[in-house]
Amino acid sequence: MLTLDKIYHASFVLKEVIRPTALIKAPNFCKNAEIYLKTENLQVTGSFKVRGAYYKISQLSDEEKARGVIACSAGNHAQGVALAAAKSKIKSLICIPDGAPISKVEATKSYGAEVCLVEGTYDDAYEKTLELQAKSGATFIHPFDDEMVIAGQGTIGLEILDQLSDVDMVIVPVGGGGLISGVAYALKSLKPEIEIYGVQAEGAPSMFHSIHHGAIETLPEVKTIADGIAVKTPGEHTFEMCSKYVDDIVTVTDDEVSTAILALIEQQKMIAEGAGAVAVAAALFEKVPVQGKKVVCLVSGGNIDVTILSRVITRGLQKEGRLAELVIELMDKPGQLRGVSKIISNLGGNVVSVSHDRSDVNMDINSCFLRISMETRNREHLEEIKKSLTDEGYKIVNPEV
Amino acid sequence: MLTLDKIYHASFVLKEVIRPTALIKAPNFCKNAEIYLKTENLQVTGSFKVRGAYYKISQLSDEEKARGVIACSAGNHAQGVALAAAKSKIKSLICIPDGAPISKVEATKSYGAEVCLVEGTYDDAYEKTLELQAKSGATFIHPFDDEMVIAGQGTIGLEILDQLSDVDMVIVPVGGGGLISGVAYALKSLKPEIEIYGVQAEGAPSMFHSIHHGAIETLPEVKTIADGIAVKTPGEHTFEMCSKYVDDIVTVTDDEVSTAILALIEQQKMIAEGAGAVAVAAALFEKVPVQGKKVVCLVSGGNIDVTILSRVITRGLQKEGRLAELVIELMDKPGQLRGVSKIISNLGGNVVSVSHDRSDVNMDINSCFLRISMETRNREHLEEIKKSLTDEGYKIVNPEV
Repeated sequence: MLTLDKIYHASFVLKEVIRPTALIKAPNFCKNAEIYLKTENLQVTGSFKVRGAYYKISQLSDEEKARGVIACSAGNHAQGVALAAAKSKIKSLICIPDGAPISKVEATKSYGAEVCLVEGTYDDAYEKTLELQAKSGATFIHPFDDEMVIAGQGTIGLEILDQLSDVDMVIVPVGGGGLISGVAYALKSLKPEIEIYGVQAEGAPSMFHSIHHGAIETLPEVKTIADGIAVKTPGEHTFEMCSKYVDDIVTVTDDEVSTAILALIEQQKMIAEGAGAVAVAAALFEKVPVQGKKVVCLVSGGNIDVTILSRVITRGLQKEGRLAELVIELMDKPGQLRGVSKIISNLGGNVVSVSHDRSDVNMDINSCFLRISMETRNREHLEEIKKSLTDEGYKIVNPEV
Repeated sequence: MLTLDKIYHASFVLKEVIRPTALIKAPNFCKNAEIYLKTENLQVTGSFKVRGAYYKISQLSDEEKARGVIACSAGNHAQGVALAAAKSKIKSLICIPDGAPISKVEATKSYGAEVCLVEGTYDDAYEKTLELQAKSGATFIHPFDDEMVIAGQGTIGLEILDQLSDVDMVIVPVGGGGLISGVAYALKSLKPEIEIYGVQAEGAPSMFHSIHHGAIETLPEVKTIADGIAVKTPGEHTFEMCSKYVDDIVTVTDDEVSTAILALIEQQKMIAEGAGAVAVAAALFEKVPVQGKKVVCLVSGGNIDVTILSRVITRGLQKEGRLAELVIELMDKPGQLRGVSKIISNLGGNVVSVSHDRSDVNMDINSCFLRISMETRNREHLEEIKKSLTDEGYKIVNPEV
């Protein structure tokens, strides 16, 4: 049975390993609510996962510790277990599906874990983990459906209450449900009037459906930018705890998550991964009743691949009209490119790249396509440039940009 | 005269406005040194500037406060003064050169300042500021060469000592020198054995030259990605204080700064602007003797324009061989693109975009150029793909990529 005492105990044990992450106000996120960020993206290993993993390991017997631990993960849990085991001076073996980003594999190794790359998907890696576990007798560290792991994650609830005693609402990312189970249990036990909302990705709504239908459901597939919470089946413990202690679960789209990531970068100077940003997305897009309240959004992790980050930023800029690629049909005669460039630069647009294309079969034989990529101040500015080009007789092939 | 008492007093006064920013360990930055980050990029307004501005304003007489304050800045100082004035419930007018990013203008307005956009450069805006100041009698808040401003910035020194009492070295970004003057004065007064190093951008080395030549020098021009520290002439007070209290000043290149920004994103999940990352760059590239020491790098600000951030990330990825655009000469016949794609995908490269070009005058009439942009794991992986393409008979036009 999970008790508040276990969570207090976990807090005490974790002192030697984790960083008590800052609670940072985000003054520009919502007009009618006070938003705070619990910055577990700044936690050691870049996510909260080390809390549960370390507490779980600390409670193993000496005999169990001698046999080491084993886990299966392509992400934050891998790094959490690896560091927790190293700090506990025991062996760890982490099975990772071989499609995982090399940066995550390297990070896991750097904390001292042995890594077993398994061909295939997460499910294949999971099968391999069970097989290896049966052979070695190492303790399997479940990513979420384990009372000790849940107790470890619950320490975040205690910290939040310590940092903002009059908090009204806490919004928490939900994958398998370990994080929200611990946080909700701690907070509802100490102060039942605090509202707790969970957030899932629209493309991986397993706990969302399970809670709303009153029984555990398994999704056939999951697809979201928030890969850290793309879980097909909720845990049994966590399903039960969410049913009891969580006010509601909502979902956010990948576009909403991207906007949240960009807002965290621009307004708060910090990096969140997709899964880490869903609580912020729920607040920004008012998926939960935040108005007039003091709200903590749990930013659960920051381990985003930089190539994906780069794409999220580009897409965010495009959506806000701050980066655009116009395709313009030109008559293939001198002076046309100069004419277009002049209009854009006169209006303060910043041309990033230009290319000519003369070979499209859909095109008049005497004309060519000019692709011009430029930075603009905002959507109004972009529209102003487009209007000016059209007014001067240039044909924009992709006016929807 | 600056005294330690003034800095302690500033600390007390600032409590109501600033955030005592976290000191965060960066375990993977240097093999032979313990690196910590003083995260003033997470300060309110996104930089340390609010400290000096607020303390300065707090020490004005009631009569002076009634006339308001005026400042000139295209960046962090603008936001710092704007917020400081708003918190002090007095008027502020900020002159900003009209080429400044719209995001910075909007942020300054959002804190409640009146903004005067001045056509031209910083120098033009500065002239306008003096003119307006003479008319209104508002107090001019200097960005660095002011004892009260320096005392405010010095509070960071006290916090560092509080957070890491056995710190050996502190590395500080240097523009006009206000920040390092305050920090160095505080630390050297309390614990003279702490080493203090300043860092400037190679493209804006005004304090670097002035200190090494023993007299204040003015640069004809400045050019760097670290625009927040691109200052042509050091201050008089700050030059004197740097001469007395700073062990040495070094410079870093724009490429080193970009690498530092990327390292902060990937390893520490936080955003620094160019100026904010120079101390980290100096540690990463061992421009100062960090080996075996406990070193604090002051990350002074995080207000980077997202379009610039996007370019820094892209460039960083290209430098590390993780994003590459290959130009391949193809015979213009069927199946060639498929052949190239197959090689790349078999080796695990991820194609981002492809374009054909048939119109280059330098080209054989029967061939065409294929531009293929792809994500790779690292430089070795990229080289492996390039070798495989060459082995199969494809000609890479830009083998230097």
